[in-house]
Amino acid sequence: MEKVFIFGHKNPDTDTITSSIVMENLEKKLGNENVKAYKLGKVNKETEYVLKYFGVEEPETLDKIEEKANVILVDHNTFSQSIEGIENANILKVVDHHCISGFETKTPLFYMAEPVGCTETILYGLYKSNGVEIEPKIAGLMLSAIISDTLLFKSPTCTEKDVKVAKELAKIAGIDIESYGLEMLKAGTDLSEFTPEEIIEIDSKMIEANGVNIQVAQVNTASIEDVLKDQSALENAIQKYINNNNINLFMLLITDIINSNSEALVLGDKVDVAKKAFGEEIVNNRMFLKDVVSRKKQVFPVLMENA
Amino acid sequence: MEKVFIFGHKNPDTDTITSSIVMENLEKKLGNENVKAYKLGKVNKETEYVLKYFGVEEPETLDKIEEKANVILVDHNTFSQSIEGIENANILKVVDHHCISGFETKTPLFYMAEPVGCTETILYGLYKSNGVEIEPKIAGLMLSAIISDTLLFKSPTCTEKDVKVAKELAKIAGIDIESYGLEMLKAGTDLSEFTPEEIIEIDSKMIEANGVNIQVAQVNTASIEDVLKDQSALENAIQKYINNNNINLFMLLITDIINSNSEALVLGDKVDVAKKAFGEEIVNNRMFLKDVVSRKKQVFPVLMENA
Repeated sequence: MEKVFIFGHKNPDTDTITSSIVMENLEKKLGNENVKAYKLGKVNKETEYVLKYFGVEEPETLDKIEEKANVILVDHNTFSQSIEGIENANILKVVDHHCISGFETKTPLFYMAEPVGCTETILYGLYKSNGVEIEPKIAGLMLSAIISDTLLFKSPTCTEKDVKVAKELAKIAGIDIESYGLEMLKAGTDLSEFTPEEIIEIDSKMIEANGVNIQVAQVNTASIEDVLKDQSALENAIQKYINNNNINLFMLLITDIINSNSEALVLGDKVDVAKKAFGEEIVNNRMFLKDVVSRKKQVFPVLMENA
Repeated sequence: MEKVFIFGHKNPDTDTITSSIVMENLEKKLGNENVKAYKLGKVNKETEYVLKYFGVEEPETLDKIEEKANVILVDHNTFSQSIEGIENANILKVVDHHCISGFETKTPLFYMAEPVGCTETILYGLYKSNGVEIEPKIAGLMLSAIISDTLLFKSPTCTEKDVKVAKELAKIAGIDIESYGLEMLKAGTDLSEFTPEEIIEIDSKMIEANGVNIQVAQVNTASIEDVLKDQSALENAIQKYINNNNINLFMLLITDIINSNSEALVLGDKVDVAKKAFGEEIVNNRMFLKDVVSRKKQVFPVLMENA
């Protein structure tokens, strides 16, 4: 069998990295030896903590993909969030939990999506339906991704199924969800080593709606004011990014994982789209978004509708 | 729960009609009472035979869909093959076996695709994974669709899984695959009641590749020459369709279900794309395609690559 490349999205988060590793594990258990997990960028602090905790190596980085290369996508489908050359790759499988947008194939494929909080919840179902046992280390990675994507079950993206699967994975991994989860999330809020330019690209996604290019970056924190203590440096980085990438609206969501709110830095020539979408004023380039923690469920849909 | 509309593609075939009915059955068994199967156009002779054989009523016809209506798509995903208004519907689920193209959603959804010969093969897996028993009548509908889509397992789109599932369904339905299958396929070749204009629209799909609009219609027959005995009337109908719909290349595949070959009528200002794709000459607007029976696997991909 020809080599198969497995990877998640650019600006990888814990779900994307662990899902790539877990999908490689599942495929190998099913007899597909020639598969390998990759990453499309630097792992974040949270993922670093997870991989170290379970003693799993970081996947190698992949920059682009050859024409007709066999690939499996996890945790994304939109080509603009994927690798260079994806348009001409041979996409064999997709396992994802996002809306489908900017994706197309020339041939039929395996595509499994469910409206759940985390890709790992779907992968858990694939282990079950294929009768494959989940090792403790793999269960630990999967659990970490569910905790990460659902912010310890507090995000509105979290479903009953995510909670149920997380509990079963915690049993297999022998992990206490609350204490491990909080430590893991806190590890991800350490931004001390990042420049403002890096902070706005750690977890950043672009969509285009009605001709408006909208970029939404997100960072988690235990203290919003801490992240904003040098607000003007962040604004300069955002303005530079806007100019270089032809962005009309940039939102940096700074999400308080303790109180489940977000403060957004909002810049661009289309800030009115954000105002209209959330019905909030922008003061000093800031907009407070009460109870908003999910970019996918609470931010992108309303922005798309108001663009 | 709000009403959910279930339907397949325009120009419905046996897979599209039966998958809608079967999906309604599955959803109801899972406790979703407010779901209903519809069709987007007149059923063909083969499907008529199948529904009559198993004593199942034809679904009602649906012309368009309201904004934000809840829908489940079976056997297709491409919006241009779907209902009017699909762009603004709330797509809850898709179960399909085609390439993904011209499809997008604003929210996450359930999407189950596999590269198999028939949607019913995937639906069979969903009955199994949900622990729902399949009634004989439903099994008969599912089996009919697999026979139809794979031309009694002779099409290159047919996978081992399709054959395995068909055999299990035949057992449940108490049907002899060979004898029933041939009768059913023959019923579908009866074109006596159709005008040339109708023949080219019975099972017709459009794709756009590199700015070239390609329409490929397909009819099954036991005798190619029978279908072509009034070739000029078919050509006139095709030319009219080309003019009205801005088509650059129209192919009418006339597929011999006994010998597993096709003869194509080829018209339009881009017939060179078909010539290049198949490496065959066009004589008297005809092109013979040896061993070609599958539009999806043997026709659309090569046309797309050569457009």
